[in-house]
Amino acid sequence: MRTIYLSGPMGAGKSTVAVALGRRLQRPVIDLDQRIEAQAGMSIARIFAERGEGAFRGLEAELARATITEGAVVALGGGALTNDALRHDLLEAGLVVTLRADPEVLLQRIGDGGGRPLLAGLEVAQRRARLLALLEARACAYAECHAEVDTGDTSVDEAVEQIATLASDVRVVVPLGLRTYRVEIGRGVRARVAERARAAAKGDVVLVHDVAADNPRPWPRDVAERLTQAGRRCVSVRLEDGERHKHVGSVETIWDAALDAGVDRHALVLGVGGGVVGDLTGFAASTLLRGVALGQVPTTLLSMVDSSVGGKTGFNRPRGKNLVGTFYQPSFVLCDVETLSTLEDAERVSGLAEVVKSAWLDGEDAVARLEADAAALRAGEEGATIRAIEMSVRLKARIVRQDEREGGKRMWLNLGHTVGHGLEAAHHYVGLRHGEAVALGMIAALRVGVAQGRTEADSVARLTQLLHALGLPVDLDERLSEEALDFIESDKKKSGSSVRFVVPGRPGDTCVLPLSLGAIKTAVRG
Amino acid sequence: MRTIYLSGPMGAGKSTVAVALGRRLQRPVIDLDQRIEAQAGMSIARIFAERGEGAFRGLEAELARATITEGAVVALGGGALTNDALRHDLLEAGLVVTLRADPEVLLQRIGDGGGRPLLAGLEVAQRRARLLALLEARACAYAECHAEVDTGDTSVDEAVEQIATLASDVRVVVPLGLRTYRVEIGRGVRARVAERARAAAKGDVVLVHDVAADNPRPWPRDVAERLTQAGRRCVSVRLEDGERHKHVGSVETIWDAALDAGVDRHALVLGVGGGVVGDLTGFAASTLLRGVALGQVPTTLLSMVDSSVGGKTGFNRPRGKNLVGTFYQPSFVLCDVETLSTLEDAERVSGLAEVVKSAWLDGEDAVARLEADAAALRAGEEGATIRAIEMSVRLKARIVRQDEREGGKRMWLNLGHTVGHGLEAAHHYVGLRHGEAVALGMIAALRVGVAQGRTEADSVARLTQLLHALGLPVDLDERLSEEALDFIESDKKKSGSSVRFVVPGRPGDTCVLPLSLGAIKTAVRG
Repeated sequence: MRTIYLSGPMGAGKSTVAVALGRRLQRPVIDLDQRIEAQAGMSIARIFAERGEGAFRGLEAELARATITEGAVVALGGGALTNDALRHDLLEAGLVVTLRADPEVLLQRIGDGGGRPLLAGLEVAQRRARLLALLEARACAYAECHAEVDTGDTSVDEAVEQIATLASDVRVVVPLGLRTYRVEIGRGVRARVAERARAAAKGDVVLVHDVAADNPRPWPRDVAERLTQAGRRCVSVRLEDGERHKHVGSVETIWDAALDAGVDRHALVLGVGGGVVGDLTGFAASTLLRGVALGQVPTTLLSMVDSSVGGKTGFNRPRGKNLVGTFYQPSFVLCDVETLSTLEDAERVSGLAEVVKSAWLDGEDAVARLEADAAALRAGEEGATIRAIEMSVRLKARIVRQDEREGGKRMWLNLGHTVGHGLEAAHHYVGLRHGEAVALGMIAALRVGVAQGRTEADSVARLTQLLHALGLPVDLDERLSEEALDFIESDKKKSGSSVRFVVPGRPGDTCVLPLSLGAIKTAVRG
Repeated sequence: MRTIYLSGPMGAGKSTVAVALGRRLQRPVIDLDQRIEAQAGMSIARIFAERGEGAFRGLEAELARATITEGAVVALGGGALTNDALRHDLLEAGLVVTLRADPEVLLQRIGDGGGRPLLAGLEVAQRRARLLALLEARACAYAECHAEVDTGDTSVDEAVEQIATLASDVRVVVPLGLRTYRVEIGRGVRARVAERARAAAKGDVVLVHDVAADNPRPWPRDVAERLTQAGRRCVSVRLEDGERHKHVGSVETIWDAALDAGVDRHALVLGVGGGVVGDLTGFAASTLLRGVALGQVPTTLLSMVDSSVGGKTGFNRPRGKNLVGTFYQPSFVLCDVETLSTLEDAERVSGLAEVVKSAWLDGEDAVARLEADAAALRAGEEGATIRAIEMSVRLKARIVRQDEREGGKRMWLNLGHTVGHGLEAAHHYVGLRHGEAVALGMIAALRVGVAQGRTEADSVARLTQLLHALGLPVDLDERLSEEALDFIESDKKKSGSSVRFVVPGRPGDTCVLPLSLGAIKTAVRG
């Protein structure tokens, strides 16, 4: 059970809501400031005065981390999550809710500032100025949370209900300051689309999808109806599905449909579909009227675990895949596992390749979990699928936070993709799904790891077995061709004459090495 | 004469270089810390101890501002320019040079930290940690400068010569933290392209231009030769000139030329030409391989004063101008007025419309200056032209700093463009140059201002006279059509049913009003 952390400025009601929430969920309640005072044996005001704010923050972070395993409801101090490392740890391990209220409401609740060291001894005007300065300084930290609840216009009971609902939710935060967004995973989460659209943008919705209206898969129609019911004008754009339609012409279709409908800068462009639709929709949103809001409702396993998170957009050029694009973060992502139910089996299984990749990057625990879940995943069992998506999205969110624009660690996510892309290109993007190519590409990458002395030979066998158990292809030698290997040269991870190749060791141990094409070819041929 | 400010961390050599530079330029030298101590009647260490850092920074900012009119060489304290307002004032009024050196060099020079309150009483390891923390905290502030000089690998005399050269340079800083860049204006500044390219990116250069190799205007060839001599591989892409080629097909030409040549993420895309080339080049750079470095060498007056600054990129769609694009800042801009010498007269004059716009947004002084310079500008006199470009670029840099993504004040730059774009569209982008359309659009905007009671009727006469003196068209009534006015509806500054219209008052007094199309039409028809 994840510990629930209530963050937010002084006066937002953290202590009050914590007590009521603890009662509602029958969980212990921790007031972190009280713990700090008990531990230090003096009041917080005295800690500030005698030891300074730095010492206080150190103690605060230590005691906050200690609560991660308690499954409690924790009221944090208002400045606790300005500590980046602590904030990111709590976002990963717990559920962080920011309580907000209008500054005037906060000031009224704070009163004369008694007991608040940061406001001690200030006049009204100074208190207001100090509070506004604190809110501005902490805006990015407060924005990085699982949800925000406004306690200015909701009662304590309503706030408690909102947070209680969240506690049973699967939701991963991609913490990027004021551009923070959440990936929500579960059955039926697409029903939240109107609410999320309202928070993201106030204009029309350009709904991009790849499914015909008479298709048995009703997702785009369903999403459009919810938006229309919520009073949004919806412009529907249908794209042809498949990698061969991932070109600028499809983006032009989106641009012109939106412009013909007369949308303005308050528009939201919403992608409902697989990875191709997601990448094209993201690119269109990032460039339409120089950038409008973006939402994603991925409907394939591959797009849920891969392309819907991280903000990469783009399309192919004659020279290769994804050679043109942008980095552009969505405002929300809704991964509704119900949309996987009508997916072709091979299509769904193909998405599991990226799950294996994420687990291998994450570490031994994730790989072992996946091995245990393999049969359930292959059968499409919902609980196992949600777990797999969550693991993949968490891993990706962690990497994207550290390296949004692929200067370093984000390169890791290309594990299996260098040879994978070559295989896809050599097959002219037909006859081999992206996930299938990545599965084979990972085997190839592990072979390179063995050749480089970075990994044991039995890792190749373990990975092969896991891929096979999930129903993914493992017949690399049959599929490999010189053409596929030659394609590596045009890959955009190239830097000068060497290729920056993601070399996997054992699970959780990954590195990027500059390798010559020759060295890669020799190792992959096995 | 602009005061020269030397900024940078402790140990970078600010005081030493200031004394030598003052001697070299025969200018008075001010050590700001000494002034502060004289004013306060106590040492800086004591000000810190007795009054706190806040009080010290206040006094420092006050005394630094007082030097703006002195034309001196000022050695600033290392933390002075962490004050945003002070930094931006000095960047506008003076010449700000950041002195840098490797942290180890700085530590060696600092010695035991004596006399440096921020390092007082610290051990070696603590001094290093404190210095690195200061450098990180101040990285954005130090990056916002006219130039950086590394005193670690240059002698004091060399540093002095570098800065003395700068003092006679016309250079405007667009201060955007670590993405800060400079617009350099003058005769022959294109000769700096290889040096600027080296600082911006280490890979190949994709040179985009609109001039044939056998053209009497040799600028792109000249630039390419300098890059090649400096050891850069240069991929040349020639685009067709003119608004009707401002479409995605031209961007595809750039993408594919770069990809066919096998460039990687370290590439620099460099635009040499007018506004169309600049906007297309900027878009291509922002999307090629998800974004590579960008440089601009505008060769028309219009692109120097307008599109080369501010990071707007894009192209037209059937529905209208610039409806697709990105915000993407260049790494450098070189405005070489020599490239204007072979420009067709009407083309050059057309660019003066944006200069008039900038002056009107800036204020009375700028407009009066322009009126005084009108004959010289019309004749293409170089000094007046450089002054006009500098004024326009400064105004734009100030606005872009305050509002990079056009949430507020940047809207002002659309003055004259709403009706102007309509006129261009109604003329199908032939027979009326962009600048000519903007000139007429400004007259239209002033008419709207009069109708809204925001401006006096004689402002229309004053603007009309200035445009006429510069050789720009003023025959709005003859050019106007219902078609042109109807086009306003599709303008992307639209928000719901009203148009966000930039309404000019007297010079320096601008506002944006939501107006109905009907109200605009009635006012413009006069």
